[in-house]
Amino acid sequence: MSVSVADGLKQYSVSVIGASGYSGAELTRLLLHHPNIRLQELYAFSQAGKFVNDLYPALACDKVYNPYHGEAESDIYFLALPHGEALQLVPALLEAGKTVIDLSGDFRLRSVSEHEDFYKQTKSPGSVMTYGMPELFREEILKGKAVSNPGCFATSIILGLAPLFCAEDNVSKVRFVNCTSTSGISGAGRSSKTELSFSEMSENIRAYKVGVHQHTPEIMQALGTSATNPSFEFTFTPMIGALVRGIYSILNVQLDSPADAEEITRFYKDFYKDAPFVRVRDTMTEVKHVYRTNFCDIHIAHATASGSLVIVTAIDNLLKGAAGQAVQNMNIMLGIDETTGLL
Amino acid sequence: MSVSVADGLKQYSVSVIGASGYSGAELTRLLLHHPNIRLQELYAFSQAGKFVNDLYPALACDKVYNPYHGEAESDIYFLALPHGEALQLVPALLEAGKTVIDLSGDFRLRSVSEHEDFYKQTKSPGSVMTYGMPELFREEILKGKAVSNPGCFATSIILGLAPLFCAEDNVSKVRFVNCTSTSGISGAGRSSKTELSFSEMSENIRAYKVGVHQHTPEIMQALGTSATNPSFEFTFTPMIGALVRGIYSILNVQLDSPADAEEITRFYKDFYKDAPFVRVRDTMTEVKHVYRTNFCDIHIAHATASGSLVIVTAIDNLLKGAAGQAVQNMNIMLGIDETTGLL
Amino acid sequence: MSVSVADGLKQYSVSVIGASGYSGAELTRLLLHHPNIRLQELYAFSQAGKFVNDLYPALACDKVYNPYHGEAESDIYFLALPHGEALQLVPALLEAGKTVIDLSGDFRLRSVSEHEDFYKQTKSPGSVMTYGMPELFREEILKGKAVSNPGCFATSIILGLAPLFCAEDNVSKVRFVNCTSTSGISGAGRSSKTELSFSEMSENIRAYKVGVHQHTPEIMQALGTSATNPSFEFTFTPMIGALVRGIYSILNVQLDSPADAEEITRFYKDFYKDAPFVRVRDTMTEVKHVYRTNFCDIHIAHATASGSLVIVTAIDNLLKGAAGQAVQNMNIMLGIDETTGLL
Amino acid sequence: MSVSVADGLKQYSVSVIGASGYSGAELTRLLLHHPNIRLQELYAFSQAGKFVNDLYPALACDKVYNPYHGEAESDIYFLALPHGEALQLVPALLEAGKTVIDLSGDFRLRSVSEHEDFYKQTKSPGSVMTYGMPELFREEILKGKAVSNPGCFATSIILGLAPLFCAEDNVSKVRFVNCTSTSGISGAGRSSKTELSFSEMSENIRAYKVGVHQHTPEIMQALGTSATNPSFEFTFTPMIGALVRGIYSILNVQLDSPADAEEITRFYKDFYKDAPFVRVRDTMTEVKHVYRTNFCDIHIAHATASGSLVIVTAIDNLLKGAAGQAVQNMNIMLGIDETTGLL
Repeated sequence: MSVSVADGLKQYSVSVIGASGYSGAELTRLLLHHPNIRLQELYAFSQAGKFVNDLYPALACDKVYNPYHGEAESDIYFLALPHGEALQLVPALLEAGKTVIDLSGDFRLRSVSEHEDFYKQTKSPGSVMTYGMPELFREEILKGKAVSNPGCFATSIILGLAPLFCAEDNVSKVRFVNCTSTSGISGAGRSSKTELSFSEMSENIRAYKVGVHQHTPEIMQALGTSATNPSFEFTFTPMIGALVRGIYSILNVQLDSPADAEEITRFYKDFYKDAPFVRVRDTMTEVKHVYRTNFCDIHIAHATASGSLVIVTAIDNLLKGAAGQAVQNMNIMLGIDETTGLL
Repeated sequence: MSVSVADGLKQYSVSVIGASGYSGAELTRLLLHHPNIRLQELYAFSQAGKFVNDLYPALACDKVYNPYHGEAESDIYFLALPHGEALQLVPALLEAGKTVIDLSGDFRLRSVSEHEDFYKQTKSPGSVMTYGMPELFREEILKGKAVSNPGCFATSIILGLAPLFCAEDNVSKVRFVNCTSTSGISGAGRSSKTELSFSEMSENIRAYKVGVHQHTPEIMQALGTSATNPSFEFTFTPMIGALVRGIYSILNVQLDSPADAEEITRFYKDFYKDAPFVRVRDTMTEVKHVYRTNFCDIHIAHATASGSLVIVTAIDNLLKGAAGQAVQNMNIMLGIDETTGLL
Repeated sequence: MSVSVADGLKQYSVSVIGASGYSGAELTRLLLHHPNIRLQELYAFSQAGKFVNDLYPALACDKVYNPYHGEAESDIYFLALPHGEALQLVPALLEAGKTVIDLSGDFRLRSVSEHEDFYKQTKSPGSVMTYGMPELFREEILKGKAVSNPGCFATSIILGLAPLFCAEDNVSKVRFVNCTSTSGISGAGRSSKTELSFSEMSENIRAYKVGVHQHTPEIMQALGTSATNPSFEFTFTPMIGALVRGIYSILNVQLDSPADAEEITRFYKDFYKDAPFVRVRDTMTEVKHVYRTNFCDIHIAHATASGSLVIVTAIDNLLKGAAGQAVQNMNIMLGIDETTGLL
Repeated sequence: MSVSVADGLKQYSVSVIGASGYSGAELTRLLLHHPNIRLQELYAFSQAGKFVNDLYPALACDKVYNPYHGEAESDIYFLALPHGEALQLVPALLEAGKTVIDLSGDFRLRSVSEHEDFYKQTKSPGSVMTYGMPELFREEILKGKAVSNPGCFATSIILGLAPLFCAEDNVSKVRFVNCTSTSGISGAGRSSKTELSFSEMSENIRAYKVGVHQHTPEIMQALGTSATNPSFEFTFTPMIGALVRGIYSILNVQLDSPADAEEITRFYKDFYKDAPFVRVRDTMTEVKHVYRTNFCDIHIAHATASGSLVIVTAIDNLLKGAAGQAVQNMNIMLGIDETTGLL
């Protein structure tokens, strides 16, 4: 269904279901400027009937939000819906042969019981799609037509830890991992909750769901273990702070052998040498360094002879943590340059 | 009903109706530390049953919010309710001989028609109480038992303009007044509106109700004229910006005679020489200068031979713009030092 | 010196002198993604020798800052230097036949005496370049090779007032204009001043240079009058608030005839019908609406039968107020679509 | 030298050396309102000659900053100087019989070599004063006349961990402690560094000095071990975020026995039952909960059967982390109620 425009560029039609939230708006922005994409429909429910230009004037998009009633006229569908809703819509889209990228947690976990524990929702055993983290699973993404886009916290943590786990001889070494991640408030979505108001969150930081956040099993699964029966001690403390965008993760790792920062840095750089959006940096990373980019910056901040390791990662939660990574996955599935429309 | 404690200090019992909003919380904080006050009851509706320590842990107050059912056990009642609700409750309290300070707009306007135009609520002609701006109406406040506390924007504007209007020979000189005032977001109350969320208001400024804000007739009334038939051209543009507390007003005045900054500064200093909470400053005022204080800072920033005048004022909207001024009014009514509990 | 690349796209080489400040960084970002541009050199003085990737990692630019020693190898030069420095460098660049866009105030004012009054610098009478506001002076920009890019405050004010002045029969009607504009702190440049620190500016607003800001004569000149001998009463109060980017201007105008908001809105829409970056909006504009865009949004917020008019405008100070408008000017001078690389 | 005022209240004269920084300003505010204190001199160097009312108008203090030349006229001296300077001044003050509270790190560490390692300054072996953390060392503080006030990060970490270490049978149980603490930017002092400007820190988070922060040996010393030869694995990652005040610490502890949140909460509550400024809370703590208070709030957020423990603490860095704790120490030394002037 893709068309070739005059200058030989192949173009695909794309629609977004759940386009009026922050991730949907960011997808809209990216897709409007993507050379291989023709943005077709923006579906939204609570905002149906409104113009994009009224809700997000900065997007300069003259489309209107429409309610979704099972349409399947586009080549590619992004779903940016609240957890649980994509489970209902994706099967029909796949049935119709569409390329699907889902930004919710609905299709991330292979374990039904872990899904039910952490999402408080039932789902059937087959409801899993390729985990869309290109740096680890590029081959699987490339082969398929359906991708489950990683969680924002999960992205910032998995990318920071993966080299320690994915190099075979390293697996045994990790004994404990403690993650503390601060997210921008946009991570909570376009919300009307009092506790997310400016007056409450300015000059504030708040941890929540300590040890029970739904990204925990996703992280464990990506690292080759499980939340139910983990191969190492793992704790995750998510926080929100007084910023709109960004995730900053401090990953405390305890190895059972001495750690050397320079050596680990070299190892990380090699591990990510083909990943255009991961930057292993020699100096401290900051949220501002990745603001409005699709990069994940990683810095090995500290390593001791007794095996303690502090890894710092930064992403923009709405880009590498959501819409940016989704477009990166689409690029891979379309067989075009992974960075198209993202730099 | 007041009691004298051991060291000769007279103490009064006080209750707050509508204590769980931001103005109510600020009142709670001030009254807890006021030497002449015994804080009795904190009434609230939506938060009834909750502990202050859960809603506002920084207050370190172990009271519980209770619903108000017409109790009249305290000497003094502060009302910090949404507009319209005090109209129902105040008559019974006055009947019972209580001292009443109302922070809403219900009793500010003498003109019933202006009240109905700007508040979209009917009220009966007699529903007016002394306008509680001590710098202008100290004598009336002192004599009575009921005060209508000024609006936050109104306070920052009236105090900045009053000397020009209240000195008899100056009245005729003012031809135009344009006010633009930026308020902290707490001015909108403890809210769950999406447009007041951190994600929407960080890095943002937004004007609203331009020319139709309900503080307009209040300002005109205090300056000796009326919104319906004003003696000079007046425009007021309220804004909210990316801060929690504070109001910063730029008052553009056009006189029909040359203006001299030094002379006007001297005149203002003299006008406010007995006002402990108004500071006429020789250097630029900033919101930060009055943060968490009951001061109104005023600076004559510019004056020209052609009669243009720029006056800059700053207050903390929750203190001089609400709870602080309310306590100042109470102090005056109790015959104690106006600054008690406020410095 | 421009080259035609494979697909027929003409490309020009561009260098930026003063590239390490915030405007320079924004120029870098825009030029890196501009299809007709090959970014050649980034010149900087205090940061010479540093990598862009160390100072601005979000730009993902692997160039290094070099000191400028009179090189003239590019087709086009942007200068984003502190006021006064471009005066020294521009003559040689023009002599060498280069296209020059200067972002400082050095070449904006025709009146030498006004320049000296407001910039406290001497300059020679001929040091004026075309005033680069495309919405008003597109023809002159198109014809020349040298443009003086407007000031950030000036842009937000001139665009909001121009229709009132540039329609011939309207000129006589304006009697007074009071402007109050709040700028993001990036407008002060990449600075190490204590008064611009996070601790000082969070929760703060501060006016400065009231009535004496250097954009005053620039505004008056663009509106067809002068600061020295103005045809109407004008006051300008600049402020900085607790945001990084954006300018929000409240323009209070007093006409000598009744004003009607709908009629003026229609008139403004017509006036700007060919201006791709000016949006006259029917609803209130906010800073967030233009964040990270090159738009100037304008809303007629209030108009009265007595001739009072409140116009609200919003721009991103680093884009339409600096780097974006500079690229827009370049596009016009190159004869390509005005919006190239800016949407 | 103390005087008894009319109502029997004993009053002491106090001076502050280094009064113009943020900790000094906060001390000034507290001391101005302290019933037992007469604030005598405010000494400052770079700001000498300026009025407090010009630098900190919100303090409403009409004193002037004077340079310090060895005066010793007050009963009590607070020193809030950059590290290294108190080492020079304190001996003479102690010699003169003064009560001294030093807010710098100069006198905190018993180990000269650790001091030199972490502060890059030499000091003589005897330069240690009582470590002024009332919750742990109240008896020593009470007996002496000289106190070294704890560091801000150190306070938030030590109070969160102390019960685990100070209960004798618990010591052996802790195997690893990873601390990540986010501080408000005021912790960096009243600064003119570019990297602390509003434009750089808004929407930003930045870790620094990971594993090498000077509060590390202070924490270890207070917990009964040392940085040089620790009895457990310890990592500390300090960060600054986009807020002015507050420290939020996530303390990841690995015990070698199962941990139960309720049991640990009970134990903590019992441990701190006599500490008026430590609140062990059953619900999540936030920075806002302790904003502008002297409280340290602690919440046991997570505990697992495998011995992982997540403790969350919050303080205001300028109060419990600096000036507030300093006044608390003074109160104890004066034998008055520990909370005087702090609630």
